[in-house]
Amino acid sequence: VRRLRVELGDRSYPIFIGPGLLENAGKILISLGFATPPVVVTNPLVLRLHGRVLLASLEHAFGSIPVVQVRDGERFKNQTTLNRIYEGLFRARADRRSWIIAFGGGVVGDVAGFAAATFMRGIPYVSVPTTLLAQVDSSVGGKVGVNIARGKNLIGAFHQPRAVLSDTAALRTLPAREVASGIYEIVKCGAICSEPLLAYLERKLAAVLACEAPAIVHVILEAVRIKAEVVAHDEREASTRTILNYGHTIGHALEAATNYRRFRHGEAVAWGMIASALLGCFYCRLPAEEAQRLITLIYRIERLPLLRGVPKARVWRALQRDKKSRDGKIRMVLLRRLGQPEIVDNLDAAHLRRLIADFLGTADERR
Amino acid sequence: VRRLRVELGDRSYPIFIGPGLLENAGKILISLGFATPPVVVTNPLVLRLHGRVLLASLEHAFGSIPVVQVRDGERFKNQTTLNRIYEGLFRARADRRSWIIAFGGGVVGDVAGFAAATFMRGIPYVSVPTTLLAQVDSSVGGKVGVNIARGKNLIGAFHQPRAVLSDTAALRTLPAREVASGIYEIVKCGAICSEPLLAYLERKLAAVLACEAPAIVHVILEAVRIKAEVVAHDEREASTRTILNYGHTIGHALEAATNYRRFRHGEAVAWGMIASALLGCFYCRLPAEEAQRLITLIYRIERLPLLRGVPKARVWRALQRDKKSRDGKIRMVLLRRLGQPEIVDNLDAAHLRRLIADFLGTADERR
Repeated sequence: VRRLRVELGDRSYPIFIGPGLLENAGKILISLGFATPPVVVTNPLVLRLHGRVLLASLEHAFGSIPVVQVRDGERFKNQTTLNRIYEGLFRARADRRSWIIAFGGGVVGDVAGFAAATFMRGIPYVSVPTTLLAQVDSSVGGKVGVNIARGKNLIGAFHQPRAVLSDTAALRTLPAREVASGIYEIVKCGAICSEPLLAYLERKLAAVLACEAPAIVHVILEAVRIKAEVVAHDEREASTRTILNYGHTIGHALEAATNYRRFRHGEAVAWGMIASALLGCFYCRLPAEEAQRLITLIYRIERLPLLRGVPKARVWRALQRDKKSRDGKIRMVLLRRLGQPEIVDNLDAAHLRRLIADFLGTADERR
Repeated sequence: VRRLRVELGDRSYPIFIGPGLLENAGKILISLGFATPPVVVTNPLVLRLHGRVLLASLEHAFGSIPVVQVRDGERFKNQTTLNRIYEGLFRARADRRSWIIAFGGGVVGDVAGFAAATFMRGIPYVSVPTTLLAQVDSSVGGKVGVNIARGKNLIGAFHQPRAVLSDTAALRTLPAREVASGIYEIVKCGAICSEPLLAYLERKLAAVLACEAPAIVHVILEAVRIKAEVVAHDEREASTRTILNYGHTIGHALEAATNYRRFRHGEAVAWGMIASALLGCFYCRLPAEEAQRLITLIYRIERLPLLRGVPKARVWRALQRDKKSRDGKIRMVLLRRLGQPEIVDNLDAAHLRRLIADFLGTADERR
């Protein structure tokens, strides 16, 4: 088990990464100073697959553990689910000294974290992510929130967890597509900050795809280290944290334009990274062979759902509505070199729109 | 116009108190660094009474100002209103660099502040309170939130405003009962921290009730100064901030037990302070003449709605569910002396319950 610390002053917290953390969760949390039973927020699948192990450990440490179940899937990351968690907290007689364990994937983490941020004006929470995507991405940085009809993550907060326990043994039950989704986020961390991480993925991709230790532990740790460093410098995304959105601006637009049905989040980001690599060549002089190296790695991971038929006008509208856009101007993260991101916001809209439409029309074949 | 600063590190902010601030709001906000038009959240009554003055000043400074109207009254401080504000922000094309002005009483301030805390993970807001209660109480300290079926203020956040403009001229349109509600909170500040403030109120009560400057400016400033100092030491109510709840534990219970219909918040707190004065004599050796002095001052302010018929069992249940209670134990703020609060949580429940039932049964007559 490896351990690192996200440095955020009085909101700093440790992240544990490795196999066997579910079994030892109670002991670890006691050692971190927790003394009362948490309320565990999870979904039925995670509960069935991993609940017994985690709950046994927690019960041994804290006694009886209330569990609140929410439905899984991005479309349940909404205010209804949020209210269900509040209600579960009340039923468990939670008060402002209670704390939550968010146990599951990114949806559980985001909505349970937002419940923690707002229940009685904020109670602590610990994240126990069980998907690769959640372990590398949503468990670091304190972004919590829900979707509303207007779009994703539009309502939320920054609320840092008190600790993250990422059990890599839990990843073995994940479907391949879900594993791939997480690996794309690791690729992203390499693309923006670490060419060596990309090289490692190129060498050990089979072991990583199989979630085998030590390869999987290494790449999670590196991705988390990169994200933690970026977040430590800019917790609230005033400036540099934006680079973590590499591939996400277009990725979010692809998800929105297909009603969140065709792509998993990571897959949309993968297409977003591919498009952004090409845009990088165009706008930031990213060498073509570096763009190609990144694109080749992404294609090796999994067969991405096709872009055919994605409505171009809707993609463009979604881009214009992006949270990062300012005064109607689209802001994107592009690459100058692998590992060297650049935030670009002075793009000619008509030109950008044409490039993206071109990409959407030709990407399936080019592959 | 007087100015003071709430010291909260990088979340510090200025409070302006005095007549004529609405007319000068635009100029002041420009001088504080705001450069883009805010979204103003208010209610129809405030808009009718004071909107023209504020909006003219803001439009002069920032250009066209979008306005979001919400319904007034504690029962609209809920998630529906919150969503209406989000929707208004989207319609105004707000993004994460937008900011809000909460313009109105405590309800507008709490719900608009919570919208600001959670819209796109948090945008700035400025508070322009138009009721005495909001000027002395809810505009200081960053507590924002909404009520849910389970109770008041159970969902919320700490989100400090960037500035507060308390125009005392706006108070002249308030009904007497609303003015009284605010004065009870000023009395509370005196009771916990400043005997001289109580003495000033005793001397100048008529001028204060008429909201005449300089008396009203003086008492608001003193109350705000006290609250700001307490909050600066304990922003998130880990310890000493609790003293601001003097009178509130019982006050909230009275409101809940009467479905928020019989008492205005300040009136319930007034009864809570009276009850707490008597409990202080009992549990903290508050001298009887000091308790009487406080009670007499409270009775001079306004004729409080009677306690007759308030269901005692419901009051008790509400007390047990209080956010401050820990492990089922009721925590209350009582007084040792006027100006010397004490947080008490080791009270025998059966005995406390009897004392409160006694009080509820006899207070109307004793008056």
